Amino acid sequence: MRTPDIKPYLVTRGLIPENQEHPIHFISSAITPEYYFFRRNHFSYPVLSEQSFLLSIGGEVQRPLTFHYQDLLRMPSKEFAVVLECSGNNRAHFRPKVFGEQWEGGAVSQGVWRGVALRDLLKFTGLNAAAKEIVFEGHDSGKRTDIEGEFVFARSLTLDKALHPDTIIAYALNGRPIPYKQGYPLRLVVPQWYAMASVKWLRRITVIDTHFNGPFQEIDYVYYPEKDSDEGKTPVTTIHVNSIIQQPLNRNVLDTGMHQLYGMAWSGTGFITTVEISVDGGENWNRAAIQPVPGNPYGWTFWNYTWVVTQKGEYTIMSRAADSSGSIQPETARWNRKGYGYNAYSTAHVKVE
Amino acid sequence: MRTPDIKPYLVTRGLIPENQEHPIHFISSAITPEYYFFRRNHFSYPVLSEQSFLLSIGGEVQRPLTFHYQDLLRMPSKEFAVVLECSGNNRAHFRPKVFGEQWEGGAVSQGVWRGVALRDLLKFTGLNAAAKEIVFEGHDSGKRTDIEGEFVFARSLTLDKALHPDTIIAYALNGRPIPYKQGYPLRLVVPQWYAMASVKWLRRITVIDTHFNGPFQEIDYVYYPEKDSDEGKTPVTTIHVNSIIQQPLNRNVLDTGMHQLYGMAWSGTGFITTVEISVDGGENWNRAAIQPVPGNPYGWTFWNYTWVVTQKGEYTIMSRAADSSGSIQPETARWNRKGYGYNAYSTAHVKVE
Repeated sequence: MRTPDIKPYLVTRGLIPENQEHPIHFISSAITPEYYFFRRNHFSYPVLSEQSFLLSIGGEVQRPLTFHYQDLLRMPSKEFAVVLECSGNNRAHFRPKVFGEQWEGGAVSQGVWRGVALRDLLKFTGLNAAAKEIVFEGHDSGKRTDIEGEFVFARSLTLDKALHPDTIIAYALNGRPIPYKQGYPLRLVVPQWYAMASVKWLRRITVIDTHFNGPFQEIDYVYYPEKDSDEGKTPVTTIHVNSIIQQPLNRNVLDTGMHQLYGMAWSGTGFITTVEISVDGGENWNRAAIQPVPGNPYGWTFWNYTWVVTQKGEYTIMSRAADSSGSIQPETARWNRKGYGYNAYSTAHVKVE
Repeated sequence: MRTPDIKPYLVTRGLIPENQEHPIHFISSAITPEYYFFRRNHFSYPVLSEQSFLLSIGGEVQRPLTFHYQDLLRMPSKEFAVVLECSGNNRAHFRPKVFGEQWEGGAVSQGVWRGVALRDLLKFTGLNAAAKEIVFEGHDSGKRTDIEGEFVFARSLTLDKALHPDTIIAYALNGRPIPYKQGYPLRLVVPQWYAMASVKWLRRITVIDTHFNGPFQEIDYVYYPEKDSDEGKTPVTTIHVNSIIQQPLNRNVLDTGMHQLYGMAWSGTGFITTVEISVDGGENWNRAAIQPVPGNPYGWTFWNYTWVVTQKGEYTIMSRAADSSGSIQPETARWNRKGYGYNAYSTAHVKVE
């Protein structure tokens, strides 16, 4: 008899539009297989056509141009592994609880993206002196619950970030054309930023001389520290240093003996320097072994820690990562009304019997 | 361009052994498709052989007999839709939290089971006067965390339950042979009881003259009301009256306007008589429309409720079902150390904007 097929599945958060988590506790491959990439949509999937292979660049440029997908394939490209994390990842863990998709830890994946640096494309169009921000529009559009009308998913970057040499117009993921659900044929990929910046099904790039204020820039993807006012709002940008305990799972029951604790850590503000583990609820911390992927500044780092437990009882296991910028995970994430940027210690309460 | 395939997935709780939830919020078919049936295992999947098609009945019987799978196919059979619910379903919702698989609402499925009444098989073997309980052993076995040794998954029923005309040795699910992961070739199906009673990969039936005290009878599947002692322990048996709000999801953001709230209700102690909905956190309740499946005493009932909401704000939606025995869902489930039998109101906090 053949062995039964046992595999993890995406975690369904919603179908209209489709939102599904990567089954992060059950997959340890450095590069997330396409099938297991988390899916996060604001609208229904766009209908593509011949036109969808065109990318126009206009606005405050000297020569507006339209590139074809094939043009990009022929240009010099770069490729790197990038952690893409939804800024709402772990939203379910905020206390007080917040509204929105109740992502647990799996709204994050790592892929190898290949594409053309946006700055290389902009060399063809030139930039006017008035240029201030660059707006990226996807092919996806639809309605919102909070304001009337039809909206395209659009985001902007300031010039400095847009011109970073690793801000790319990607056309391949893991060595193949980008999967449709991940933005085929072209996707903006902005390493180190939360994934709302990496606009899928990229259709149009517009250089503007003002600050862009579309709803996905000025209403969503904004930290609101107050429940009842917009005071102190700041935009969501770089990924906060973060880690996850993949195994054991929260509320697992374990034997006495030796256990391998393991997981990942990543950051948008530097490379991971340490991952520390506590098995006593944060009283004492020890360093985990870490395995960064060499020469990969935007990827995640695996960690593991051997835990020998002889005493039966309940234990609170925690992980906390620190990065080369000096950022370290906080014990409690900074609460904000829409639930972005969660990065408190990863925690698993276990019982040993 | 073809429409992208968007479908829900099982919710992975564990792979060794495999434990996966039915994606209950996203599937509204009366009969759970095989692919979406929840999977709950205590051990690795058993290796089957020719021997696995034999079912022996022995112990306190007049004529021990071994039946072949093919024998059962030729006998008079009965078929009905049955809700199988893991007694740990919704364990994640107990407060204080408990250890074990953190099932949310999807450890429940409904299938149409066909098989031979156990009492009909026992007519062939006869019962000795000393017969008191009947023990059912599966082909699955393995280790436990709490006690040393190798254990077979085995459960017992008292004579009255075992001889109930609808306690069957099933050989078909939804009109086809039972899927391997659901107990192929033979599974005991005990309607109205939590699903631990419905032993998969059924191998042996033994009539005994005492009370069976295997660990899945006397340690697991027991309500322990106290955290630190076994005082007041009682066995897990019938399914508590229960309901679920399938949509909206907890923490959804909705428009003002009309919304269809819907879900299911079921019970092991009678048929569903009412499902009531509150949209104000339990202050006021209104009856939902219910659609029982006619002539199906062991199946679930669909309910729906049209909610017109004009006022923006936060709302707490609740459902509570009652059954023909007079049982009604409680506001708070009865806490027990291992987290069985959760059946508090189903709740969804939503924001209307």
